[in-house]
Amino acid sequence: MPLAADLAAWVRLSLTSGLSGESLRKLLAAFGGPEQVLEASRAALSGVVTAKIADAILGAELHGDPAAVEAWLGDANNRVLTLADAEYPRALLQTPDPPPLMYVKGRLDLLNRPAIAVVGSRNATAQGKLTAEAFATALSNAGLTVISGLALGIDAAAHRGGLAGLSSTLAVVGTGLDKVYPARNRDLAHAIAEKGAILSEFPLGTPPLAANFPRRNRLISGMARGCLVVEAAMSSGSLITARIANELGKDVFAIPGSIHSTLSKGCHVLIKQGAKLVDDAADILGELRLPVPAGAPANRASALFSHPLLAHMAFDPVDIDTLAGRAGLQAHEISAALIQLELEGAVAALPGGLWQRLI
Amino acid sequence: MPLAADLAAWVRLSLTSGLSGESLRKLLAAFGGPEQVLEASRAALSGVVTAKIADAILGAELHGDPAAVEAWLGDANNRVLTLADAEYPRALLQTPDPPPLMYVKGRLDLLNRPAIAVVGSRNATAQGKLTAEAFATALSNAGLTVISGLALGIDAAAHRGGLAGLSSTLAVVGTGLDKVYPARNRDLAHAIAEKGAILSEFPLGTPPLAANFPRRNRLISGMARGCLVVEAAMSSGSLITARIANELGKDVFAIPGSIHSTLSKGCHVLIKQGAKLVDDAADILGELRLPVPAGAPANRASALFSHPLLAHMAFDPVDIDTLAGRAGLQAHEISAALIQLELEGAVAALPGGLWQRLI
Repeated sequence: MPLAADLAAWVRLSLTSGLSGESLRKLLAAFGGPEQVLEASRAALSGVVTAKIADAILGAELHGDPAAVEAWLGDANNRVLTLADAEYPRALLQTPDPPPLMYVKGRLDLLNRPAIAVVGSRNATAQGKLTAEAFATALSNAGLTVISGLALGIDAAAHRGGLAGLSSTLAVVGTGLDKVYPARNRDLAHAIAEKGAILSEFPLGTPPLAANFPRRNRLISGMARGCLVVEAAMSSGSLITARIANELGKDVFAIPGSIHSTLSKGCHVLIKQGAKLVDDAADILGELRLPVPAGAPANRASALFSHPLLAHMAFDPVDIDTLAGRAGLQAHEISAALIQLELEGAVAALPGGLWQRLI
Repeated sequence: MPLAADLAAWVRLSLTSGLSGESLRKLLAAFGGPEQVLEASRAALSGVVTAKIADAILGAELHGDPAAVEAWLGDANNRVLTLADAEYPRALLQTPDPPPLMYVKGRLDLLNRPAIAVVGSRNATAQGKLTAEAFATALSNAGLTVISGLALGIDAAAHRGGLAGLSSTLAVVGTGLDKVYPARNRDLAHAIAEKGAILSEFPLGTPPLAANFPRRNRLISGMARGCLVVEAAMSSGSLITARIANELGKDVFAIPGSIHSTLSKGCHVLIKQGAKLVDDAADILGELRLPVPAGAPANRASALFSHPLLAHMAFDPVDIDTLAGRAGLQAHEISAALIQLELEGAVAALPGGLWQRLI
């Protein structure tokens, strides 16, 4: 089924070579709508944009194929949203550079719900990913849709956590929506398309280009009420997302870690610059003036690791006999519990038969 | 050798049952000095303190033995300091409750040098103790005497680190100075008495009493320019020290850690309340507007302390001509010495031709 005339005009303009979102918004303001822009004379267009861009509009010089968009819209789960659509994310209208057109797969209702960005390192630690997932689930259960960038590491964990909660998750990607990047997140992307939403401002077919990721980050910040950074090295993309969030007047939250971990350096810099240190999802809800759900496990990691044996372990190495004495258990019971806790990442076996609590 | 009359009067009043430091300061203000207090009539005393305390003063009702103080002062390394002594820590005079009399073992010069409190949990992790020691050494090398409470864990590590640096360490304890508590810190206490200083406001023979430790903490905060908390559980004594430091208008610094470690909870709470997150000793020096030494020298000759020029420098910036006048040397001789001292990290060149002593 061919596109409606006005949507066809939006798509054609969004694909016009050299025509930025900013220039397109100026044209729309000048002429009233996309069809009026396409009917305007070269002289009239040149009063708003450069002659080169006016020629590109008039000559239909495109960097993408409208027919591909039409085909893609054959899937009922896919939608193109423009600035004129009621479903367009209203939060983005408060930002300096809202994309005139975006591609969305999944639940449109998520685009206008209270949301929180949860971002961090692609090279996250196992503990960092557990933390991101636990916070995301808690925040999702408290009514915040979790927005992230579908990267490996913290992003993927945040999406998984958001999906597990009540308010789902929204992935904002830097490629065309017909591409899943990175490939290792294919299953996750499908789950999000089904139970959450994936969004991109980039035309179908756009490959992963480094230059596009900072643009993607501005949408993540722009759609969220606040931005939580879980693990981030210095000079990482997550710090860009946090900086944009701060510039937009949103709260920035960061989770601290060991001063000896390079993956905590970025979070510590953010806190020094004024980001709020959080060690519990309730900290974020309080700052955003949202109620903390009653009886909700604040974060799964602490629930997971509340094994009674841990109460008898400090963070210094200890042997099994000492632990048995402290806990009033037999050594073989202690051994069994330690092995379980080791599998869960809560303790580590050290040389010499010693054990150390990790969390 | 018997005590001088005025010191004997100070000691007797400090040991008088029921006479608090606050009441003693009131009496001193009213009568002019300790001997005058002891010569005052019951009626005159009762105009300032309760009749019960006046009777205790007149009846020499003591909770300690002045003869024991006399015997203790037989060791040349021991001193009793009163509010009237030039060596009394001037910083404490800015606090609401300076002890009228204190017992000191070791280097009196440390009591009036720039200092930083480094405190934390008795049940610290191995990593926490390493961190405390490393920060303490760096701060000591940068010109800050490290003050702590001689407890196990972070306190002991802070003292060791301070001793290893150029500006040594000061232990403020909650027992009589003839008691070493905890016993496991005996060797450390001896090293501090020799190369640093230990002080207590509590009479000789005072055992470790829980009620005395918060009082001890107020001296730690009161003598320091800022307070660094390395690892602390919720509701720990370190948080009291930090709170007092904050109330006294001093900077509070805290080292973050894993959100899953109970020993970082206290530090995280402090940061949420406004303490400065630090992950490098340079953060503290910057906040206190102290220069960061070029290197991180661990082994510097103690002969440096006796460089004649340093005796003419306070820790405030000074110009070369002033120094030349003080030292009775030519300006070019001062310049040469300063350059040598700068290379050794003992002084820093400031803008405007000024120099500042660091150690």
